[in-house]
Amino acid sequence: MKKILFVATLLICQLAAIAQQNTLNLMPLPKQLTVNTGKNRISNKFTVSVQGNARDTILYKAVNRTYQVLNRKTGLVFGQQYITTADKNDSASLVVNVKTQVLAGIGVDESYSLKVNEKQIVLNAVTSIGALRGLQTIIQLCDKDENGYYFPLIVIDDSPRFKWRGLMIDVARHFISFEEMKKNIDAMAAVKMNVLHWHLTDDDGFRVESKVFPLLHQKGSSGDYYTQAQLKEIVKYAAGRGIIVVPEFDMPGHAQSWFAGYPELASLPGPYHPGPRMQWQKEHPEVKVPQGNSIADIIANMVAPTFDPTNEKVYDFLDKFVGEMATIFPAGYMHIGADENNGMAWKLNPKIMDWMTQHQMQSTDDLQRYFVQRVYGVMKKHHRQMIGWEEIYNDQLPKDAIVHKWIPQDNGMIKSYGNPNDIAQHNPVLISDGFYLDQFLPAYIHYNNASIAAANNPNILGGEAAQWTELANTDNIDGRIWPRAGAIAERLWSPVNVTDVDDMYRRLNVLSNELDEQGLNHLTNYERALRRLTNGESTEHLQTLTDVLTPVKGYKKMIAGMMKPPQSAYQTTPLTSVSDIIPTDPATKRKFRALVKLYLEKHDKNVAIAIKAYLVAWQQNDAQLKPLFVGNKRLAEIADHSKNLSAAAAIGLDALDRMDKGTANDANWVKQQSDALSAFEKAHNETELAIIPEIEELVIGHTIAEPVVYSQF
Amino acid sequence: MKKILFVATLLICQLAAIAQQNTLNLMPLPKQLTVNTGKNRISNKFTVSVQGNARDTILYKAVNRTYQVLNRKTGLVFGQQYITTADKNDSASLVVNVKTQVLAGIGVDESYSLKVNEKQIVLNAVTSIGALRGLQTIIQLCDKDENGYYFPLIVIDDSPRFKWRGLMIDVARHFISFEEMKKNIDAMAAVKMNVLHWHLTDDDGFRVESKVFPLLHQKGSSGDYYTQAQLKEIVKYAAGRGIIVVPEFDMPGHAQSWFAGYPELASLPGPYHPGPRMQWQKEHPEVKVPQGNSIADIIANMVAPTFDPTNEKVYDFLDKFVGEMATIFPAGYMHIGADENNGMAWKLNPKIMDWMTQHQMQSTDDLQRYFVQRVYGVMKKHHRQMIGWEEIYNDQLPKDAIVHKWIPQDNGMIKSYGNPNDIAQHNPVLISDGFYLDQFLPAYIHYNNASIAAANNPNILGGEAAQWTELANTDNIDGRIWPRAGAIAERLWSPVNVTDVDDMYRRLNVLSNELDEQGLNHLTNYERALRRLTNGESTEHLQTLTDVLTPVKGYKKMIAGMMKPPQSAYQTTPLTSVSDIIPTDPATKRKFRALVKLYLEKHDKNVAIAIKAYLVAWQQNDAQLKPLFVGNKRLAEIADHSKNLSAAAAIGLDALDRMDKGTANDANWVKQQSDALSAFEKAHNETELAIIPEIEELVIGHTIAEPVVYSQF
Repeated sequence: MKKILFVATLLICQLAAIAQQNTLNLMPLPKQLTVNTGKNRISNKFTVSVQGNARDTILYKAVNRTYQVLNRKTGLVFGQQYITTADKNDSASLVVNVKTQVLAGIGVDESYSLKVNEKQIVLNAVTSIGALRGLQTIIQLCDKDENGYYFPLIVIDDSPRFKWRGLMIDVARHFISFEEMKKNIDAMAAVKMNVLHWHLTDDDGFRVESKVFPLLHQKGSSGDYYTQAQLKEIVKYAAGRGIIVVPEFDMPGHAQSWFAGYPELASLPGPYHPGPRMQWQKEHPEVKVPQGNSIADIIANMVAPTFDPTNEKVYDFLDKFVGEMATIFPAGYMHIGADENNGMAWKLNPKIMDWMTQHQMQSTDDLQRYFVQRVYGVMKKHHRQMIGWEEIYNDQLPKDAIVHKWIPQDNGMIKSYGNPNDIAQHNPVLISDGFYLDQFLPAYIHYNNASIAAANNPNILGGEAAQWTELANTDNIDGRIWPRAGAIAERLWSPVNVTDVDDMYRRLNVLSNELDEQGLNHLTNYERALRRLTNGESTEHLQTLTDVLTPVKGYKKMIAGMMKPPQSAYQTTPLTSVSDIIPTDPATKRKFRALVKLYLEKHDKNVAIAIKAYLVAWQQNDAQLKPLFVGNKRLAEIADHSKNLSAAAAIGLDALDRMDKGTANDANWVKQQSDALSAFEKAHNETELAIIPEIEELVIGHTIAEPVVYSQF
Repeated sequence: MKKILFVATLLICQLAAIAQQNTLNLMPLPKQLTVNTGKNRISNKFTVSVQGNARDTILYKAVNRTYQVLNRKTGLVFGQQYITTADKNDSASLVVNVKTQVLAGIGVDESYSLKVNEKQIVLNAVTSIGALRGLQTIIQLCDKDENGYYFPLIVIDDSPRFKWRGLMIDVARHFISFEEMKKNIDAMAAVKMNVLHWHLTDDDGFRVESKVFPLLHQKGSSGDYYTQAQLKEIVKYAAGRGIIVVPEFDMPGHAQSWFAGYPELASLPGPYHPGPRMQWQKEHPEVKVPQGNSIADIIANMVAPTFDPTNEKVYDFLDKFVGEMATIFPAGYMHIGADENNGMAWKLNPKIMDWMTQHQMQSTDDLQRYFVQRVYGVMKKHHRQMIGWEEIYNDQLPKDAIVHKWIPQDNGMIKSYGNPNDIAQHNPVLISDGFYLDQFLPAYIHYNNASIAAANNPNILGGEAAQWTELANTDNIDGRIWPRAGAIAERLWSPVNVTDVDDMYRRLNVLSNELDEQGLNHLTNYERALRRLTNGESTEHLQTLTDVLTPVKGYKKMIAGMMKPPQSAYQTTPLTSVSDIIPTDPATKRKFRALVKLYLEKHDKNVAIAIKAYLVAWQQNDAQLKPLFVGNKRLAEIADHSKNLSAAAAIGLDALDRMDKGTANDANWVKQQSDALSAFEKAHNETELAIIPEIEELVIGHTIAEPVVYSQF
């Protein structure tokens, strides 16, 4: 199978050569790029000279890291050791000129320009952060041909479209190890992201050590939390890569884990312990709430543990806690969550209802508004700009509070609070709707995000890719976030008119290999997980199948998990099923799709050979994979897909054959095959076959546009 | 190729079934093991109950880790959440009974007993450390058949042969990341090792943060050092796995990096900076020392930066430094190195020579003895038992100083200070001769270590596997240490009569998969490095070749590197060549060897088919691999091996054919083929083909014993 991929990759490379001329392998694409003829060859004489503030350790460390990445990639054994100001040399292979030392921050000048001629690379930047962005471009420019490694000759002038380009990682539902956080920061840096939004607390866990209120982490987690030393190390590590860390501490809802140690802060009596959102309600069957069967009913009526906004001690507590956290997270932003509070916990407490009456509050929405306003005061006191999910938005919200959009305009379940351009007339806006990586959608969906395409109000700061972790943990999160987040990073950095999906996928695949080479574990974890599924036996045929499977899209997998025995939603649930470990947007599908498109355009024989090679391998795979299904429950789940892949591949081969013979236009045959293929598209056990549409294209003889939207439920 | 491995693995498994009955997949093998008929089936109802000190967090965390390892391995979604004392239940699937809470330490009771019947596993241990060892055995017992996961029914009574079972990791020559240190500690725990000997300083780098003398890490490294918070975290992490950390701070020699910040401590004037041992001498051509061309001459005459033992300030400095480090490393041991001091730096300083005369010292050996004696006093003051390499040994050495053997009895270059049993009559002894993992030797060499086999003096505490890092870094160290260190761990734990090499290799292969599954990167790093070598193209045919290559054995690769331009010995040298990334003792060779042995014994047709499958793939591989060699300098280095593998495989196929036809006894033919094979055994560019002896066996029709020793130079 790998051999086929090899042939296919070569073909795609050759045929994409013209595209590559214009866009190279860069992701995100720069604002302006001119490609000239010729190459700057890299030898072991490659040297670097830096002109910058000698005490700018972030800059010098970044230059040294870049030098070592190139050293390792080329294997040339460069002669320079640790690069310092003493290495100033105008004729160095790479000259880096930086005017001003700055720290990462929102609105900092991130621009840079880059000139590569045959002898030298010159990187100019106003700030050290701009230089860091340019260094990543240099790494991505390094390429290889039959004569070795080189830089293409180019002129680049670059700066970002948006000043806020974030990645949110939820470490509450499943804890993500300290080490994996660093890997993700490295990958963010590679695609010029500048904000790590760290979702540190939620119902399921309180993941930060508090010295002021130690019961927060002691009772709010099972020992899975970051120590303050670790938190500071991550902040420093991110700063070294031009990235700020914005912590999120959820309130008034999504707050169960706070109450495990401090039940007196909650609206309803304890005891509480960290765990799934529905836990308290399940443990209190005596509390009667309206029943319902739909998900909408459940959301409207669930009793989710919530802060008591009428309790003055809550604000004292938060004041001290925010003060403590402000010493750890120096960036001037703090996220309070404040989403998904249906007010049920307040309605069930007569004292709170009385207080609302006394204060002329009509609804729990008023009380939520009051709470947010008070917390805004706490943030102000500690010089932090408050961010909240879009539920904080109302006409009384202070003008500098940042509204974080997450509800899609067309969501059938929950009402959006407005479109980003409109909200931005009142408050700064961040966009995450359309950027939820945990919905298992292909990268192009995020890339085509309509909210961000339409964003034209300068008060829209940018956006964030978001990875919630009901279904992700340390073992699989790299593959859940990457490489897809690269497409979002490009959307937030590159000009709005950069929209070529095919070229995006070509470059995303290169990025994926580059991230692997630099140490991200998205590929290695996948391979390791496959070995786990075969108990150390050969994974070759299993991977032929899993390379074209995806998890079911939207929230289907999550909801299926919630319906299983209670433990399935816990942080200790092993995420080792096929649907947990396979790539979300498989590269194999993208390569196959590109080949099919090309063939339908040009009917090139070599392309047909490459397509056939895939189809033959798929057709034969079921027979070879079958022995592994015996006694292996986790693999038995994909037995149907294995059969269907064989059958679908046979149809594809037939279609190719008919096109060759000119007998493809048999309407009856087309109808029969299309019906058969439709059946193969069905999900089985939380996975679905990804390459059915492409085989359908072969059957009907023309391309089909991919869906613009996928159902979430 | 993977398909072949699959068939071969199945065959080996079937044929090793009887062996497995007796030894299961355990490594190290326990002292006493009885295997009964039947299986204890694992379901999602698997529960654990612990009887132990409720505040023994190390025990409870280890139990929870074990539970989650089994949960992840089986994918069964166990129902229990975080296990605490509250979960006491005599009918749990696994009952753990512990009498006494203790911390890891040398001589602590590590015994445990384990009974598995059809319904329950009972683990009894006197101490929590013994329980930790037993939990690892439980993980290794978990196996799979066509009906799912199970534990075999067994009775085990276990305790270690030696109380000191260590792994030394050099983090000075190449820095090893904090994260990789943790991965190695996990792997050590899996094979019941109990001492991490951390070689933290050497000429090339000072890897610990000192707050008392901050220039040590600031000038003694290029920023690659562990902060005190990190050091403490590693100590705690190791303690949580029943492992103590013994730090090594090298003196009087191997000390260049101390002097970068504090040149006044050295015997000769500075400036100094961290780097290879020969650096100071190269920078001082005015200092004339006797010339020589042999390695022995170089060793005898090099001017290696060395502490000045006549300077009282040195002892004040060391007193403060050791005092500081004692607060970080609570274990009662500290290693001072003290090896390889030829005295040259002292001879070149007239003041030191005068001082020696005044103090009636005849030779620099006397001065070394004096220095060690003074440092011994510093250690005593801080309640640390001193350890030094065997050069500290002499008849005046205080009786409680531990002598760490490293010079093989038969080393042609350097004289051993005596055999372990003899030295142990005066001082406690640790054995590392025969355990140097960085010599690229197959595991059986370490497994058969004569020093340890002969060790019968109870004053021999145990031994340590040692990984020096001239040629290892964060990217490849896992594969350099593991799985081979597992064979050493068994040698140090299991009874002296456990010596079956074939069964050791069978179990080592299982261990390798288990370590992979638990997160060690020895396999993933190899695969990632192969992708780096092909620039993201298919690695299939490359791996068919590299799976049967090994680095050249002994110090040949290291010396070749030293002879290259100076930078090749630096910590920034990329270790990405084929010889850097391939396994040292390839599993494929071991599997192929087992098949050939079996065939020569039984002439079974199925075995012949499996052998033939390997040979055919090897024979055809060169043609398929060749395209990758174009323009790829790093791969061009193995082009000859690729051709030779094809040719050797053809000989093997011919031999099989002749055995089948009964025409193998043609002396002329045997001679010709053997000569051809001998030529293929030659190393090329720091690698050699590993499977030539097995093909030779097919040619001559009988097995050949493997070498007992390999040349180091």
